[in-house]
Amino acid sequence: MKSAVELKNSALPFVGVDQMVDLVTTVGVEKFMRGLANYIEEDFKRWPLFDKSPRYASHSQEGVIELMPTSDGSSFTFKYVNGHPKNTKVGLQTVTAFGVLSDVNSGYPILLSEMTVLTALRTAATSAMVAKYLAPEDSTTMAMIGNGAQSEFQALAFKEIIGINTVRLYDIDPAATEKAVKNLTGKGLEIIACKSREEAINGAQIITTCTADKRYATILEDSMVSAGVHINAIGGDCPGKTELDGNILKRGDIFVEYEPQARIEGDIQQLDSDHPVTEFWQVILGKAPGRKNREQITIFDGVGFSVEDFSALRFLYDQLKAVNNILEIDLIAQPNDPRNLFGFFEDKADNKNENFCGNVSQFG
Amino acid sequence: MKSAVELKNSALPFVGVDQMVDLVTTVGVEKFMRGLANYIEEDFKRWPLFDKSPRYASHSQEGVIELMPTSDGSSFTFKYVNGHPKNTKVGLQTVTAFGVLSDVNSGYPILLSEMTVLTALRTAATSAMVAKYLAPEDSTTMAMIGNGAQSEFQALAFKEIIGINTVRLYDIDPAATEKAVKNLTGKGLEIIACKSREEAINGAQIITTCTADKRYATILEDSMVSAGVHINAIGGDCPGKTELDGNILKRGDIFVEYEPQARIEGDIQQLDSDHPVTEFWQVILGKAPGRKNREQITIFDGVGFSVEDFSALRFLYDQLKAVNNILEIDLIAQPNDPRNLFGFFEDKADNKNENFCGNVSQFG
Repeated sequence: MKSAVELKNSALPFVGVDQMVDLVTTVGVEKFMRGLANYIEEDFKRWPLFDKSPRYASHSQEGVIELMPTSDGSSFTFKYVNGHPKNTKVGLQTVTAFGVLSDVNSGYPILLSEMTVLTALRTAATSAMVAKYLAPEDSTTMAMIGNGAQSEFQALAFKEIIGINTVRLYDIDPAATEKAVKNLTGKGLEIIACKSREEAINGAQIITTCTADKRYATILEDSMVSAGVHINAIGGDCPGKTELDGNILKRGDIFVEYEPQARIEGDIQQLDSDHPVTEFWQVILGKAPGRKNREQITIFDGVGFSVEDFSALRFLYDQLKAVNNILEIDLIAQPNDPRNLFGFFEDKADNKNENFCGNVSQFG
Repeated sequence: MKSAVELKNSALPFVGVDQMVDLVTTVGVEKFMRGLANYIEEDFKRWPLFDKSPRYASHSQEGVIELMPTSDGSSFTFKYVNGHPKNTKVGLQTVTAFGVLSDVNSGYPILLSEMTVLTALRTAATSAMVAKYLAPEDSTTMAMIGNGAQSEFQALAFKEIIGINTVRLYDIDPAATEKAVKNLTGKGLEIIACKSREEAINGAQIITTCTADKRYATILEDSMVSAGVHINAIGGDCPGKTELDGNILKRGDIFVEYEPQARIEGDIQQLDSDHPVTEFWQVILGKAPGRKNREQITIFDGVGFSVEDFSALRFLYDQLKAVNNILEIDLIAQPNDPRNLFGFFEDKADNKNENFCGNVSQFG
């Protein structure tokens, strides 16, 4: 008999961790981040269009669970992300994430994706895209202070998008540096493991700070920073967590993603709330200057914003058009007659001998 | 070689539409709703514990996409739900939903589930649970005005939980009534298709209104409602959409899930903002009276609340413990070393010949 349950229209493309890694590997990590950076740049150009509602945060003693939604009026996305510092003690990740892309016209989700890996890629792509406008011309060397999960992605994004050829690594934990050196060897960069922050910064035009310390830290002292550098400060990304000496912020020109969020989460939480900062989309659109001269210190106080996740899901969705083994899951009910949801059960009763365990299929 | 990618800890149980229907059919629709009603009642007893942040809503010309989060401090849930009235014209559902249950201590999601079917079940379970406290003793007959997607679930929940034996159906569209009669035949209820609202209400102790009309409608006129009935008004559930003559609301005692939301979305949006209403959890806890006498008109102005979705996901999760063919998806990245997210790519390069298309498995 004809089934009353038609699932073909309700199958939702699903990109799990394994498929994400497979897809990015096939495209190439660097090329993937370049494409992603282009999408982020495009979306920053359309900045005023986006819904910039504050994220929803559910705080507990152990951490926070957040939902980060946004929309450009045509697509809607949200990211689920947690932050639980003690997780590592029991072999879990501090931060995990997944997200959904939806079609605003129908309200239907059209993509479910892991976003732990994707967020790492979009964070690096954002930093490098921003540096295109702010880093000194012909930058060749980046210092990377903090060699954790984000470091390799930053190095490769800056190589691909800015054209750096040297990365100088430093971490308070030598094992982290060793890991980064191992992962970055053979990737077309000169990799230099350094024994101090000062050594890492030596000769670098770009300084990236991506440390994990959960407090008001001073990863960069004022005296360490020379004129003309670009600082890509992405580790200070929540209340109570900063990386830069406040005097560096006062010497430089500060660029943020979204000012209201950066005031709370960024390194600028150290400054008076009226200290001038520039929302970066204005630089892309020519509404505000980026780098003005060779002596200027520029600082990108990046904390991550929902629009970047939006761009990442949109880019991923477009990439999938060329992939023929995407999994689909039956997350959305699609009865033939919307008023007959109960018909699912009647149909089931009529088909007792069929195999009704979970529905997963592939489309091509 | 040993893979650096350990997915076993990151596999997330997934209940799709097909598996949901299968599970509910195995348990029995009525028994499932009884169990669900018990969980909802338990959670209503813990009402003050819950985070009752307002939902996030992304409005567009065609509809709305909402995220409804809540937490009891131990578990976190959110539901994604859209409302797009014009969808039916292109063969899509007006409302679709899915949700996630997470562990607050780790921030990890522990269940992803479809919620189109589950929401229909929880809505009916909530109505019947509320009626246990408010409907006249020994109620045997329910009038059901509006015979759409929710109607069969309401009828069966009231049979299971209240013990009604007769349902009197009416819809402005006879085809909807015909569908409901067909679905409810042989389910242990006397089913009476009626030609008018007045005929449907005749002799009913309980009147359920669940119509889909998107405007200020008057499904029940004041003159139609006799003393002593319980009105289960669940169709008036968004701004601009009501079902009851305002005078009925003034004659009866009104019970709501969560007052701030009901004032905006419920039938009480017609009333002054200080018109007295009772949050229903107070009745369960004995802090406020439910039905006081046989003449009283009681009105449950139900709009659906995140705590009910929380209960539904929690109940579903507990049900899964007895099921041995639940699908799992690799939504959450779980590298062996959290600082070595990039290791996924190195590992992939080392295993080029293995099959890395999407990871789906079953646990038992």
